[in-house]
Amino acid sequence: MASPPITYRDAVVDLLGVLACGELMAFGRLAADATLAPTLDDEAALAAMATAEFHHFERLRDRLVALGADPAAAMAPFREPLEQFHERTAPSDWLEGLVKAYVGDGIARDFYREIAQALDPQTRDLIVEVCDDPGQADFVVSRVAAGVAADPRASGRLALWGRRLVGEAVSQAQRVAAERDGLALLLIGAVRPDAATDSAGVDLAEVARILGRLTDAHSRRMQALRLGA
Amino acid sequence: MASPPITYRDAVVDLLGVLACGELMAFGRLAADATLAPTLDDEAALAAMATAEFHHFERLRDRLVALGADPAAAMAPFREPLEQFHERTAPSDWLEGLVKAYVGDGIARDFYREIAQALDPQTRDLIVEVCDDPGQADFVVSRVAAGVAADPRASGRLALWGRRLVGEAVSQAQRVAAERDGLALLLIGAVRPDAATDSAGVDLAEVARILGRLTDAHSRRMQALRLGA
Repeated sequence: MASPPITYRDAVVDLLGVLACGELMAFGRLAADATLAPTLDDEAALAAMATAEFHHFERLRDRLVALGADPAAAMAPFREPLEQFHERTAPSDWLEGLVKAYVGDGIARDFYREIAQALDPQTRDLIVEVCDDPGQADFVVSRVAAGVAADPRASGRLALWGRRLVGEAVSQAQRVAAERDGLALLLIGAVRPDAATDSAGVDLAEVARILGRLTDAHSRRMQALRLGA
Repeated sequence: MASPPITYRDAVVDLLGVLACGELMAFGRLAADATLAPTLDDEAALAAMATAEFHHFERLRDRLVALGADPAAAMAPFREPLEQFHERTAPSDWLEGLVKAYVGDGIARDFYREIAQALDPQTRDLIVEVCDDPGQADFVVSRVAAGVAADPRASGRLALWGRRLVGEAVSQAQRVAAERDGLALLLIGAVRPDAATDSAGVDLAEVARILGRLTDAHSRRMQALRLGA
């Protein structure tokens, strides 16, 4: 029996669900990583980043409620893949935590900005807003530079760490895309605000192009950290 | 050689320092405990409590800066005793985390409210503000009740847990009071806004009375959780 066609609203609820779940988990992980900080000022800076993620979560949850969706139900399908990502990429020290905050956040932000192109203005504006980076990148880049200057051997280890982060992110994202048609269709623009669905299905070449852009942006971030391979 | 006399400002910087450090650590621990939540709604509720603690931290840090103090330096003496407290009271499950959030927060709140009596109005108002409880207690009491109803054997274990929490809190507080004269003098009202210091020193009977009041309030909270011994 064929599944009912995926509507634009279904796909948007999926998207807001994965974003909200991601922000809530990022909050918990960043907060935990903050306790690895060498100084109380650094701990406070990472805690501030975590708190910003929680406020993003609140905005996304409110939007789900406004759309008549149950936030916990919308988030539930994404909890396990996101937990897997975080379990497989638990930082072993402060510098790994910083690189993860910067690189992980960067990949997620690029990904959601790609998707936002195809959305209605209200949802798009919300996603652009929660993807805003209030100076976090500068903080991380300067702290990682100081850490590598103090311990030059850390550089190679952190470069490998960056590759592991992107590998795990892509592997979990592929898993989510395979299981959640709505998200995949939204990503390639095959479900749109003005139509129920598009019959074309997933264009794998377009997905590959998007992954290529995300990978390029990741390489630029690793270079900004002077950890480019 | 005698130490220079403790001024009111020194004592207030100590007090704001221990409060700020406590809020920042409570943030990190609550955020970590949130990941033990059985549902995403519960996780979000505990994350919201953690976020409120972080905003309290920000207010206290701003006040330290306004007083011309270095927040990290003001917080530093309290980091280790607070970390010891949290390490010795790491919850092993969601219910223990909830009881800790409720009981630990409650003791801290009572303690700071005792101290606030002797302060200048501006500092007192700030402390009363950061000790505000926006409905957290109700959330915890209802969730613990639900948890104990689902697993009645948890009751005895959680009652013991509550006693351990208060024991560890008192033991770390005594350590801090012994090392930080300013805080102890402030607690018993022996340094005041209008005088450099009082020659009377620490009145141990008054300290005992305060500890008695804190312990009574703790017992009432355990009874509210239906975990009273």
